Amino acid sequence: MAKWDSCGSSPAFKQPHWMQIPFTGQKQEFNRPPTRTVRSMSQSSTDSFSKLCVAVHSDTSDDESSPRDKLQKSTKGPSDFCIKNISQADFGRKEIEMAEQEMPALMNLRKRAGGEKPLAGAKVVGCTHITAQTAVLIETLAALGAQCRWAACNIFSTQNAVAAALVKAGISVFAWRGESEDEFWWCIDHCVGTETWQPNMVLDDGGDLTDWIYKKYPELFKNLKGVVEESITGIYRLYQLSKAGRLSVPAMNVNDSVTKQKFDNLYFCKESVLEGLKRTTDIMFGGKQVVVCGYGEVGKGCCAALKALGAIVYVTEVDPICALQACMDGFRVIKLSEIVRHIDMVITCTGIKNVVMREHLDKMKNGCIVCNMGHSSSEIDLVKTHVVCACIAALTCSTVPSFVLSITAATQAMALIELYNAPEGRYNKDVYLLPKKMDEYVASLHLPIFDAHLTELSDDQAKYMGISKHGPFKPNYYRHKLLSHIDKH
Amino acid sequence: MAKWDSCGSSPAFKQPHWMQIPFTGQKQEFNRPPTRTVRSMSQSSTDSFSKLCVAVHSDTSDDESSPRDKLQKSTKGPSDFCIKNISQADFGRKEIEMAEQEMPALMNLRKRAGGEKPLAGAKVVGCTHITAQTAVLIETLAALGAQCRWAACNIFSTQNAVAAALVKAGISVFAWRGESEDEFWWCIDHCVGTETWQPNMVLDDGGDLTDWIYKKYPELFKNLKGVVEESITGIYRLYQLSKAGRLSVPAMNVNDSVTKQKFDNLYFCKESVLEGLKRTTDIMFGGKQVVVCGYGEVGKGCCAALKALGAIVYVTEVDPICALQACMDGFRVIKLSEIVRHIDMVITCTGIKNVVMREHLDKMKNGCIVCNMGHSSSEIDLVKTHVVCACIAALTCSTVPSFVLSITAATQAMALIELYNAPEGRYNKDVYLLPKKMDEYVASLHLPIFDAHLTELSDDQAKYMGISKHGPFKPNYYRHKLLSHIDKH
Amino acid sequence: MAKWDSCGSSPAFKQPHWMQIPFTGQKQEFNRPPTRTVRSMSQSSTDSFSKLCVAVHSDTSDDESSPRDKLQKSTKGPSDFCIKNISQADFGRKEIEMAEQEMPALMNLRKRAGGEKPLAGAKVVGCTHITAQTAVLIETLAALGAQCRWAACNIFSTQNAVAAALVKAGISVFAWRGESEDEFWWCIDHCVGTETWQPNMVLDDGGDLTDWIYKKYPELFKNLKGVVEESITGIYRLYQLSKAGRLSVPAMNVNDSVTKQKFDNLYFCKESVLEGLKRTTDIMFGGKQVVVCGYGEVGKGCCAALKALGAIVYVTEVDPICALQACMDGFRVIKLSEIVRHIDMVITCTGIKNVVMREHLDKMKNGCIVCNMGHSSSEIDLVKTHVVCACIAALTCSTVPSFVLSITAATQAMALIELYNAPEGRYNKDVYLLPKKMDEYVASLHLPIFDAHLTELSDDQAKYMGISKHGPFKPNYYRHKLLSHIDKH
Amino acid sequence: MAKWDSCGSSPAFKQPHWMQIPFTGQKQEFNRPPTRTVRSMSQSSTDSFSKLCVAVHSDTSDDESSPRDKLQKSTKGPSDFCIKNISQADFGRKEIEMAEQEMPALMNLRKRAGGEKPLAGAKVVGCTHITAQTAVLIETLAALGAQCRWAACNIFSTQNAVAAALVKAGISVFAWRGESEDEFWWCIDHCVGTETWQPNMVLDDGGDLTDWIYKKYPELFKNLKGVVEESITGIYRLYQLSKAGRLSVPAMNVNDSVTKQKFDNLYFCKESVLEGLKRTTDIMFGGKQVVVCGYGEVGKGCCAALKALGAIVYVTEVDPICALQACMDGFRVIKLSEIVRHIDMVITCTGIKNVVMREHLDKMKNGCIVCNMGHSSSEIDLVKTHVVCACIAALTCSTVPSFVLSITAATQAMALIELYNAPEGRYNKDVYLLPKKMDEYVASLHLPIFDAHLTELSDDQAKYMGISKHGPFKPNYYRHKLLSHIDKH
Repeated sequence: MAKWDSCGSSPAFKQPHWMQIPFTGQKQEFNRPPTRTVRSMSQSSTDSFSKLCVAVHSDTSDDESSPRDKLQKSTKGPSDFCIKNISQADFGRKEIEMAEQEMPALMNLRKRAGGEKPLAGAKVVGCTHITAQTAVLIETLAALGAQCRWAACNIFSTQNAVAAALVKAGISVFAWRGESEDEFWWCIDHCVGTETWQPNMVLDDGGDLTDWIYKKYPELFKNLKGVVEESITGIYRLYQLSKAGRLSVPAMNVNDSVTKQKFDNLYFCKESVLEGLKRTTDIMFGGKQVVVCGYGEVGKGCCAALKALGAIVYVTEVDPICALQACMDGFRVIKLSEIVRHIDMVITCTGIKNVVMREHLDKMKNGCIVCNMGHSSSEIDLVKTHVVCACIAALTCSTVPSFVLSITAATQAMALIELYNAPEGRYNKDVYLLPKKMDEYVASLHLPIFDAHLTELSDDQAKYMGISKHGPFKPNYYRHKLLSHIDKH
Repeated sequence: MAKWDSCGSSPAFKQPHWMQIPFTGQKQEFNRPPTRTVRSMSQSSTDSFSKLCVAVHSDTSDDESSPRDKLQKSTKGPSDFCIKNISQADFGRKEIEMAEQEMPALMNLRKRAGGEKPLAGAKVVGCTHITAQTAVLIETLAALGAQCRWAACNIFSTQNAVAAALVKAGISVFAWRGESEDEFWWCIDHCVGTETWQPNMVLDDGGDLTDWIYKKYPELFKNLKGVVEESITGIYRLYQLSKAGRLSVPAMNVNDSVTKQKFDNLYFCKESVLEGLKRTTDIMFGGKQVVVCGYGEVGKGCCAALKALGAIVYVTEVDPICALQACMDGFRVIKLSEIVRHIDMVITCTGIKNVVMREHLDKMKNGCIVCNMGHSSSEIDLVKTHVVCACIAALTCSTVPSFVLSITAATQAMALIELYNAPEGRYNKDVYLLPKKMDEYVASLHLPIFDAHLTELSDDQAKYMGISKHGPFKPNYYRHKLLSHIDKH
Repeated sequence: MAKWDSCGSSPAFKQPHWMQIPFTGQKQEFNRPPTRTVRSMSQSSTDSFSKLCVAVHSDTSDDESSPRDKLQKSTKGPSDFCIKNISQADFGRKEIEMAEQEMPALMNLRKRAGGEKPLAGAKVVGCTHITAQTAVLIETLAALGAQCRWAACNIFSTQNAVAAALVKAGISVFAWRGESEDEFWWCIDHCVGTETWQPNMVLDDGGDLTDWIYKKYPELFKNLKGVVEESITGIYRLYQLSKAGRLSVPAMNVNDSVTKQKFDNLYFCKESVLEGLKRTTDIMFGGKQVVVCGYGEVGKGCCAALKALGAIVYVTEVDPICALQACMDGFRVIKLSEIVRHIDMVITCTGIKNVVMREHLDKMKNGCIVCNMGHSSSEIDLVKTHVVCACIAALTCSTVPSFVLSITAATQAMALIELYNAPEGRYNKDVYLLPKKMDEYVASLHLPIFDAHLTELSDDQAKYMGISKHGPFKPNYYRHKLLSHIDKH
Repeated sequence: MAKWDSCGSSPAFKQPHWMQIPFTGQKQEFNRPPTRTVRSMSQSSTDSFSKLCVAVHSDTSDDESSPRDKLQKSTKGPSDFCIKNISQADFGRKEIEMAEQEMPALMNLRKRAGGEKPLAGAKVVGCTHITAQTAVLIETLAALGAQCRWAACNIFSTQNAVAAALVKAGISVFAWRGESEDEFWWCIDHCVGTETWQPNMVLDDGGDLTDWIYKKYPELFKNLKGVVEESITGIYRLYQLSKAGRLSVPAMNVNDSVTKQKFDNLYFCKESVLEGLKRTTDIMFGGKQVVVCGYGEVGKGCCAALKALGAIVYVTEVDPICALQACMDGFRVIKLSEIVRHIDMVITCTGIKNVVMREHLDKMKNGCIVCNMGHSSSEIDLVKTHVVCACIAALTCSTVPSFVLSITAATQAMALIELYNAPEGRYNKDVYLLPKKMDEYVASLHLPIFDAHLTELSDDQAKYMGISKHGPFKPNYYRHKLLSHIDKH
């Protein structure tokens, strides 16, 4: 396999064929309307099939015993795994096949890059939720050449049938629903490696896997080409390590990629806020006075959706730039205390704690709705007050749409490919964002879903702009000197 | 009680004090923020409390027997009633009290008009769903002076505990959940009257009560001041009677009042379509191509909501005026067959049958969503086709928000008041719409919910406009000559 | 020519072929993208060409003399006319040809109905502005079979070159820019008729022509089939006549047709309010606090446009129904005096006088903008106050877009056709609105501009709905009993 | 004066009092409604007053001679200047006073910082347009302690009366309308300095002043604390110098500050595109099919405004991330060639040349409008084609609203303050963006215009977020490692 390199501005750089963003008119079989089915069955009930399986197969008496204590064999797959029940594999396969329909971007990637196998030789150890959607990611990595071993990042979220299907397909999985904490670490430990297999890539969600390697197998870092981390918590740990000079490998922060950020926050919240509130409260929004605390991406999405339905929206902000944007977008910027007596609803989108305080709750009208859209559950001061007048809606928004999951998974895959294939010296022992080029590629994988047709720059135009025809599509000088000035307005 | 008269343009007309639309600045105790609680408990589960009651009280052995066959006594209330279980009254009362919070308009009406009792002497026989919300209406009529007897318009929808509470409060109710058809008519029959009580007003929803009087008690029409009908079906029957010259009393079509129409259709659909679809399908709307069939009020509401969330919306129409409006509002007007292969969703809002045909369904993409927002369940040709590729979402929208119910109930109350108090000769044996003035009054009852402050015309301005300071607010010449040209664009 | 009849619900009614609303798929040559040119040349400068003409042709010494005093001859046209300068005809013809491009609806009508000549035998006397756009209307009437004589309804607005072109084309025109009042009535008088020609139809804009006939030629009413009136003033006069029992012919109020109303008010204001204000004041709307007085069609259009650009919009209303709509659409309803100290702009859209009073003006912030979008120039109390702090923008919106003019002209043409062809007894001596069917037809004439494709009802669907496949598209019962309840919400 | 320092994260850093962003509730006299007047007089006609002046004062015979050749004296001001006519100063002062009303942000800055004089000791040489708005900037710099000498960056844009007023107020200005190229450089040369005055700061717009110093006075760089550059061209030159290792001082790129970017592009275009097109073409947008080329900030603003008015908008893009955003925002992403035959309008917002090519123009419908909103005039291929069918609207948007100018001027002022006060070592010989903190301060200066009230973080909250209560409001880890990934989606 020829090494490839996505960012290189050196003349020697030859972009792999499959990385070229396809334009309509070029023959491209993925441009036909994507085949999708509706999400409700597989996604809204994470374990519908699995539960069914357990019922069907529960004649075996080992159901209550820990998978650790028994021996299972996969006919074709690895002998090196530990899951609940290998016999659920067929049910799991059906779940995965349905998820494939919902994640056309990854399926596109398999087809575009499957021939070149950019992950040939990669040995990926992963620690994420184990669901049908993740299975599509793992099998995509496999289709691109990687060997994978996988553990769960959460003791409750594993879909046992999916784990079984993965094992049957040759992935070494160590995970089951309802692990004890001891079992959780045991699984991670067995996943990391054996004498005969050592990982050269890490895909982590939460940082537990990375932590474990730091503590127990620091020698593995010699072989590691990089760590891809998804969660805010995990990324924070990596930045702390980096600051302390203790980061031993390049790490990729995939959470902050532009594409992912916009979908996780702006677009997702814009679409989900109204549904979440309606489902919980049956309110009509027309004419209601609503305060949105925070005008970042989440707040912007909420405000846009509420305004469109006829709510009268006020914004609170601490950052003058966001405040000025709120003004220009047509929202009055006020302090919560000024208006709290008159409003019908407060939505917190700040990530800051104690945004809605007891003193606010006490002044609200009877029936005022308070809801938290931010990441931090402490935005509303529940502990300190007796909530008698206000209904507090916890918008857990538990059903993340497949489209959002698809963006995340494609970003993770591209980060692994980038780190694995980067030429010597591109990445040092530090935390990086996904290169613009790869971010653009993730976006391009999702365009066929909308039957969107990109325009291709002519040679002349590309030259005039000083950029490559195939991206990244920002002038070079943007790469420099921006150290002091990053934000996400 | 002095008779009063809402429309009179004669100088002798003296509008009752309470009918004056209040303006801020006038002393008015209802302008303070309305007291509301969140709907979810009482409304989304029509019978949550009731079911509980049945469980609690089911030690009595008569639960399976028909209420007809047993004797119940109301301590303070009428001895003339027939319901499931009088002992559930306290639970029903709680349901009603919660509904009162959700219907501030009716509570306002009680306070504004309670002193004058515009329904004093009225004997209202009613046939509607019997729910907590209807109970608020019935008790409002009572508070305004009416005597009421009530039956259910549907054999399944009665909340038994609410019926019990009404009986305990002195209303003669004949209804229980799960009536047989025979029991249904028995209840209506017993409701209509006895030797000692004969109705002079009818409030009907579906026309069954009116029909029954036509068939069995035609002599009652002598005393009837009018019929108020809510349902499209019932209204159609009344127009047929009128056409045939067989309508024996004035009838009021409350379904087509402007205020009610806008809320039942435009605003309600605008707010509910996205939630209904998200709840059923988990789709993200951004970038999705959607066809909305029909650009009446329902279609307008759907289109506005979908556009605001980033869907690309196409419209089909048969009426050129609606089609031109769709164009000006930014929607391409196409025929379904032109675009059916490319779309992600079809929403029918027409009231016409067979809008989406087998030939359309056969051409849709895998996963295309088809949903019916119209009143007719036959808009989608389900019978003739095997739906293999399309997911058909039945948006029953079963949870009508309290605000919509409040508009309907207030309109019914005002229609009764108008017919009961109209001077001789204003209404003949024909079907009428609610007078503009009363429609305006219904709207004004809901304004305090939004803390909305009306501006009052000065004497000069009213004279300049040729209208009364207190409405109706359209120049007189609009009243004339518009026979040939009514529509709802 | 077979008489035809647009409304008839009698089985004997046979709709003329050309009145069928065309659906895509039927062969129809007008469905191709309409040929248009940009308006700026001919419309924004009503008399650009004309002025040029005057310059070119001003070698003749008669320029200052009244056209009454000289003899002109039209080579092919009538000898019976009186205009400024027949030699400007070629320039006028160019103006008319450009206007034809902007009025594809009338051109469509010529092609659809030109074969049947529904105005054959009609003798139309008209009194309107004489511009290139009116010329397209007049020549359309001629193409449909009518003989026309025309006068100007305004002494300043006549485009002399256009008048010349009309005369050369055979229309007897009596009008020139800059008539004295005496000349104005002289023109009308000469237009009405001679011994050899007597009108049987009147098209009036302002009522002056109708008045003149009433006063001087009342015997003409014997032959008149009807009067079509465009202006609010003229319509008011007709309603007064009708009330007084003095209306001698059927009259058609074209101003209040649904299609025209929406375009003259909602859509036109929505598009023009921002441009008008920007042109006058250079304000940025984002974040500005604006009060819109009145939430009728004009107010609705203004509010929608302002909200979209990020203004914070408040509404004042006297009518509770409009007020409730404003609430549901997301606008706070307040009284002007409550907020006048804080706002950046007031826009009056009421038609009521003295909406913004001295007491309001005195309290406004320095620089607050006050503008009138309503029809009445007295909405702002200019007389009584010294406007020192507020900038009052007179949004004359003098450049009405051709699309609006096209709707008006097509409505006038259809009204003439309807009155001329109506069977005995359909119209009495009263004021009528354009029948729904004709309104729909006007809309359908404009759909090709948007490449909009109507869906045709199947026979089954039409039967189910109880309507004709070709419209009108409202159930019959809407025709009845709506006397007491007309509004335009 | 105590040196101050805006970014310092060192504990020793003491923020100057005036830099604290004011919150409502703190006593702050600038929070009252700002005093503004409407722009039309001074801004839409850059030189209305000036022209008048010339007329009034043109009795002097020296009007045609070059100001270089005559001696003028300022009574109170510098003797060292060269302008057209000192006697116009009073008229210029009126222009400046009106501009002050339009730029409350700079006036706020004078009041907030005037006491501390953060530019005391600064000697600023400037080269910008010399207009009333710039005069407000220059006098603000003076009020903050700076000595200023100024030349014009454009030979046509100088408002002579304003220049006179500046001179009279003590600023050494060398500029007049209609300089020859030779005079242009002569003015810059005389502005740079004399034996007795040498600049330590440069404010440039276009790079000509900086260039001149490089060429003629390189020794000045020894004393220079920095260069603030506004124009894209000038910034590009600075980056080139930096790349080549030849940049001799720290330079600040003020064009790319977040606040300025949003206002120059997104908000300004959103508000101006419709007005510009309406003014030029009189088109109604409802239902029109429009292609917007490019979905950057400019394109986003155009699309939002067009969609709101009912246009059907398509987008072309080369960048997949922007394309995906366009999809999610509800715009179909197509290639221009796919749809060019059907559209009513094309708007280019790309900055790329030859976006609309002859091949596109040839296929457009008659009357299709083509307009350029981008910075590059070469987006439309005018040279190569005969534009017969398309109307090409040059949207020069010459009247930039004062609000946009105010953002720019405040950003320039803050950049000068930052560079002048930065501690040794913060800035090296490189090009920098304005620190986030200063950007936030610029935004905060504009909030009082909207009566917007910022919320202040509590100590607890600030600690929890790991940021200062007074900003900048982004977590520290954003400052690092983002080198490879900057964009403006």
